[in-house]
Amino acid sequence: MTHPLVGIIMGSQSDWPTMREAADMLDQLGVVYEKRIVSAHRTPDRLWDYGKTAATRGLQVIIAGAGGAAHLPGMMASKTRVPVIGVPVQTKALGGVDSLYSILQMPRGFPVATMAIGAAGAANAGLMAVGILALQDPALAARLDAWRAALSAAIPEEPVDE
Amino acid sequence: MTHPLVGIIMGSQSDWPTMREAADMLDQLGVVYEKRIVSAHRTPDRLWDYGKTAATRGLQVIIAGAGGAAHLPGMMASKTRVPVIGVPVQTKALGGVDSLYSILQMPRGFPVATMAIGAAGAANAGLMAVGILALQDPALAARLDAWRAALSAAIPEEPVDE
Amino acid sequence: MTHPLVGIIMGSQSDWPTMREAADMLDQLGVVYEKRIVSAHRTPDRLWDYGKTAATRGLQVIIAGAGGAAHLPGMMASKTRVPVIGVPVQTKALGGVDSLYSILQMPRGFPVATMAIGAAGAANAGLMAVGILALQDPALAARLDAWRAALSAAIPEEPVDE
Amino acid sequence: MTHPLVGIIMGSQSDWPTMREAADMLDQLGVVYEKRIVSAHRTPDRLWDYGKTAATRGLQVIIAGAGGAAHLPGMMASKTRVPVIGVPVQTKALGGVDSLYSILQMPRGFPVATMAIGAAGAANAGLMAVGILALQDPALAARLDAWRAALSAAIPEEPVDE
Amino acid sequence: MTHPLVGIIMGSQSDWPTMREAADMLDQLGVVYEKRIVSAHRTPDRLWDYGKTAATRGLQVIIAGAGGAAHLPGMMASKTRVPVIGVPVQTKALGGVDSLYSILQMPRGFPVATMAIGAAGAANAGLMAVGILALQDPALAARLDAWRAALSAAIPEEPVDE
Amino acid sequence: MTHPLVGIIMGSQSDWPTMREAADMLDQLGVVYEKRIVSAHRTPDRLWDYGKTAATRGLQVIIAGAGGAAHLPGMMASKTRVPVIGVPVQTKALGGVDSLYSILQMPRGFPVATMAIGAAGAANAGLMAVGILALQDPALAARLDAWRAALSAAIPEEPVDE
Amino acid sequence: MTHPLVGIIMGSQSDWPTMREAADMLDQLGVVYEKRIVSAHRTPDRLWDYGKTAATRGLQVIIAGAGGAAHLPGMMASKTRVPVIGVPVQTKALGGVDSLYSILQMPRGFPVATMAIGAAGAANAGLMAVGILALQDPALAARLDAWRAALSAAIPEEPVDE
Amino acid sequence: MTHPLVGIIMGSQSDWPTMREAADMLDQLGVVYEKRIVSAHRTPDRLWDYGKTAATRGLQVIIAGAGGAAHLPGMMASKTRVPVIGVPVQTKALGGVDSLYSILQMPRGFPVATMAIGAAGAANAGLMAVGILALQDPALAARLDAWRAALSAAIPEEPVDE
Repeated sequence: MTHPLVGIIMGSQSDWPTMREAADMLDQLGVVYEKRIVSAHRTPDRLWDYGKTAATRGLQVIIAGAGGAAHLPGMMASKTRVPVIGVPVQTKALGGVDSLYSILQMPRGFPVATMAIGAAGAANAGLMAVGILALQDPALAARLDAWRAALSAAIPEEPVDE
Repeated sequence: MTHPLVGIIMGSQSDWPTMREAADMLDQLGVVYEKRIVSAHRTPDRLWDYGKTAATRGLQVIIAGAGGAAHLPGMMASKTRVPVIGVPVQTKALGGVDSLYSILQMPRGFPVATMAIGAAGAANAGLMAVGILALQDPALAARLDAWRAALSAAIPEEPVDE
Repeated sequence: MTHPLVGIIMGSQSDWPTMREAADMLDQLGVVYEKRIVSAHRTPDRLWDYGKTAATRGLQVIIAGAGGAAHLPGMMASKTRVPVIGVPVQTKALGGVDSLYSILQMPRGFPVATMAIGAAGAANAGLMAVGILALQDPALAARLDAWRAALSAAIPEEPVDE
Repeated sequence: MTHPLVGIIMGSQSDWPTMREAADMLDQLGVVYEKRIVSAHRTPDRLWDYGKTAATRGLQVIIAGAGGAAHLPGMMASKTRVPVIGVPVQTKALGGVDSLYSILQMPRGFPVATMAIGAAGAANAGLMAVGILALQDPALAARLDAWRAALSAAIPEEPVDE
Repeated sequence: MTHPLVGIIMGSQSDWPTMREAADMLDQLGVVYEKRIVSAHRTPDRLWDYGKTAATRGLQVIIAGAGGAAHLPGMMASKTRVPVIGVPVQTKALGGVDSLYSILQMPRGFPVATMAIGAAGAANAGLMAVGILALQDPALAARLDAWRAALSAAIPEEPVDE
Repeated sequence: MTHPLVGIIMGSQSDWPTMREAADMLDQLGVVYEKRIVSAHRTPDRLWDYGKTAATRGLQVIIAGAGGAAHLPGMMASKTRVPVIGVPVQTKALGGVDSLYSILQMPRGFPVATMAIGAAGAANAGLMAVGILALQDPALAARLDAWRAALSAAIPEEPVDE
Repeated sequence: MTHPLVGIIMGSQSDWPTMREAADMLDQLGVVYEKRIVSAHRTPDRLWDYGKTAATRGLQVIIAGAGGAAHLPGMMASKTRVPVIGVPVQTKALGGVDSLYSILQMPRGFPVATMAIGAAGAANAGLMAVGILALQDPALAARLDAWRAALSAAIPEEPVDE
Repeated sequence: MTHPLVGIIMGSQSDWPTMREAADMLDQLGVVYEKRIVSAHRTPDRLWDYGKTAATRGLQVIIAGAGGAAHLPGMMASKTRVPVIGVPVQTKALGGVDSLYSILQMPRGFPVATMAIGAAGAANAGLMAVGILALQDPALAARLDAWRAALSAAIPEEPVDE
């Protein structure tokens, strides 16, 4: 099996129903990825190791999802120069605005490419990773163009009652 | 002069004090860029053309800043597969939450890599662009590593009264 | 069949349960309309064409509904001088505040007549369109007056336990 | 002097610095208007009279600005079928979100065409009024087209340091 | 039957499940009240008449509940000097923050005594009315004291699993 | 000197610039009041004593202003059946929304008549107190009617440039 | 039975499903506690007595949960120097932001150690209490270390479909 | 010099004007502390070391202040069982709500004792640390009692015009 180019990481198993959307997108576009549970708070040393080895292991993009005080994406961005895409997972009391602010409001020096809250954001994280990888891979760029064209072509002219 | 790899675009001249931070960062890291005013609402055809030609002109990343009903980043993402980084410009009445939601909450298919609101977000947009370009450019990766190391090394041990 | 005076457009089929309220209102008041799916991001060229031909096709009002980074109403307003009424569709994580800000906070030059979030807003979009058309159509004005009078007359004196 | 087609009303003198933007826009486009202070709470009978006579006096659009518990636009919409455009005036403690919700969240039956918070919203209220009037006035439509074209033409290619 | 001292009014039948809590409280404390549907937008003339006659009809307190652009309490406060208590009814998209701001943020001159959002607020509106009436009615004051004492006495020492 | 009917209390000296508006209103309408600093957290026993003696000392209304975790109005409402009017003082970080929620969201049993955030709310607290006292004092009711009539009469017809 | 070191208090029985999480955590770590219903508004004298005797009764930490205008934690902090941990209980209309602000925004002098909204916050209140007690109790410190180690050890490497 | 019992840490020099309030409070109460700049993102290894050695170095409480995506308090709580008190530093665009959510919304297992936003929160962080230390230090407890008594005694009876 080919070496993974994208690492999908998340704070806990409970984030997987959201983050699976990123994985599905990579599957559709034919990008090899790995998926890991890396909790910023429960497994900080795992986070450290993941960040330190990301570039040398050949990862080109890291997609990190978390909810609440969602420190995983930002802490990963502090440990590696590999681009980090953050997905704010929806939360019960605050709707995910807590996740969003924790991921988005990074200080100068450590960007996290933040996506929309929830499942659509996770899917888009996959597509953003594809867009980045496509810069170096014309075949992938062509598949992304085709995927986008198909998405547009699938839109009907008129809404229908259901 | 070398061909620009990054396009910095913004909705109006009034966004420049914010977006200049992105340009400064690219200058510091030695990345060639162009800067343009492209208003989604006032110059939609310019937006169309910019998006349609971005990939063929060799742009690898687009940094788009806008405030209020900030449609520029998302509309650009719909017109090109080149990765788009969005910068929400702070606004008077709503602090930039309006800019943020308009940029962030993109539907499935058209990701915008959203940065923090305001100047820090613009600087980070520059760094995110560098991180993406560094995937193909070991010298740039080394410069980014050095920049990050210098940032960390500059932190004093203790705060001081000023 | 008579030429449509109102165009009801929406970003996706999923907006139809909300936007149908606008159509129902136009049906009640006897205004001919067309309904279309026009996605700002997935079908930007369709948006372009719709906007460019709106005035010449005889449309007098455009009702545009969208959710999340709801760029459709504002982009349509940039492409045509035909009055655009925007309907923020309710969203899961943010309740529709994202849709609202994306539609409402338009820059100087491109107004969108924003309605309340959700179904009531869609119904009111229909009524606002009627109110605009009634300026040129005394019979329609009379029907609108009657509709409003009937609405008021239907209010009971006292609430009842149900 | 020609009969006014647009009525600009506001809750108090303190709203005038905002609402003047609407008047300026109508002046630029050559639309005759009147301006009045009509306070929903302090002069409710004035509101009643204004609403009852609006249509018969020949007003085609009412632009209503108010801040805080901004009841003026919605109450006016309940008293007349003439289209009402609402402008949420920025407020000190809540930034104008209070004004916005009071104007926007109208119940089914009484639409208010809500504009952005503050001065840009007031300017756009003027333009929305022009857009509505232009449906019956080809010369005005032409002036609006020209105004929009000039706005677009004035956008420079690049931002400049100031 | 005794003359009502409290008027409970609401914008529509759909507010009754909330506002019934106010009525229940008045029933418990033995205060005579009337209940009416008075819509600020659908029946503005009914609002006018109610406000104009409130004092002369002997009403001592008006409890007004409404949701969304909740103009009823504030408009009633502009039409009568009888104290108005406002109840923000919970709403679907915005949770009742829209109702709250529309009721609370009244300009200088026209206070509305705003209660908590939803059912607890409606119950408290009843109690606030009782507290006001008790200033002139020692027997009612005694009943209110007893009601409050019983509420306190009913609190158990420890929570129990259920 | 006459016995005070209204007690104006506040959490600290820093609330006085806001709460003075309530005092000014009572001065204008000729209502005797006392003013006290009663901090829920720093002088809880003072709060206790104030609440326990309020009714027997002849207070008919208590106006309580506080900012942040503004517990004063609600705690006072728990200690006395005398009606409590709450004024949310504006705060630096959160604009006064913290003050508002702490005052407004009282549980069933202990209403606080909440006013708008800041100075206008304080002035209205004074007027609400007057409205309550006027129920028993026809002369005061007449003064309130006159004050309201003068407020309305002072509104000019048109806004003026300043 | 051993003397309780932690007092878990809450405003009403309805807070117990949330606050039970704190008790469960103390049970797991072997800390003796008591649990009481202490309503700031319904049983203020109970609050007073609890606060006054807390230190002398040997309580080392008080965990206080409340919702809405959640005055219990802050009022308890004003009555005792024993550290108070506050738990904002989730609410229906505002999601618990009201509870949060009422607990968090304490004035200088009376800190409340505020936890996350809802059940996770209650569990963490228990752990925070353990952390404080562990400063004087090496055996408890060891149990806390073990608990934390077990939590980390339980995290799987990869998410799984369920 | 005595060994420090409290560590005051902050993300950057710019947080010191806020965090100095905590130091001042510890100075007033006679508690020995150290102060350090520890940036979660710029000096993550310093954070690691600080956390790993905190308990063995004899720290009893850590006060951590940060703004924006404020990861420092939570990450520190994941690295040590020493109680962590978090101070949300006010921010420009979002007022500090971003800092607050990032610090507050910690997952089960890693509590952070969150204080109010800004300077008052920092001062209270100092007092909370004192309250925790006072559990083992009767002399400190007496000083804290005296400080609290003096705070209360300093409250004047009446507000004064300034």
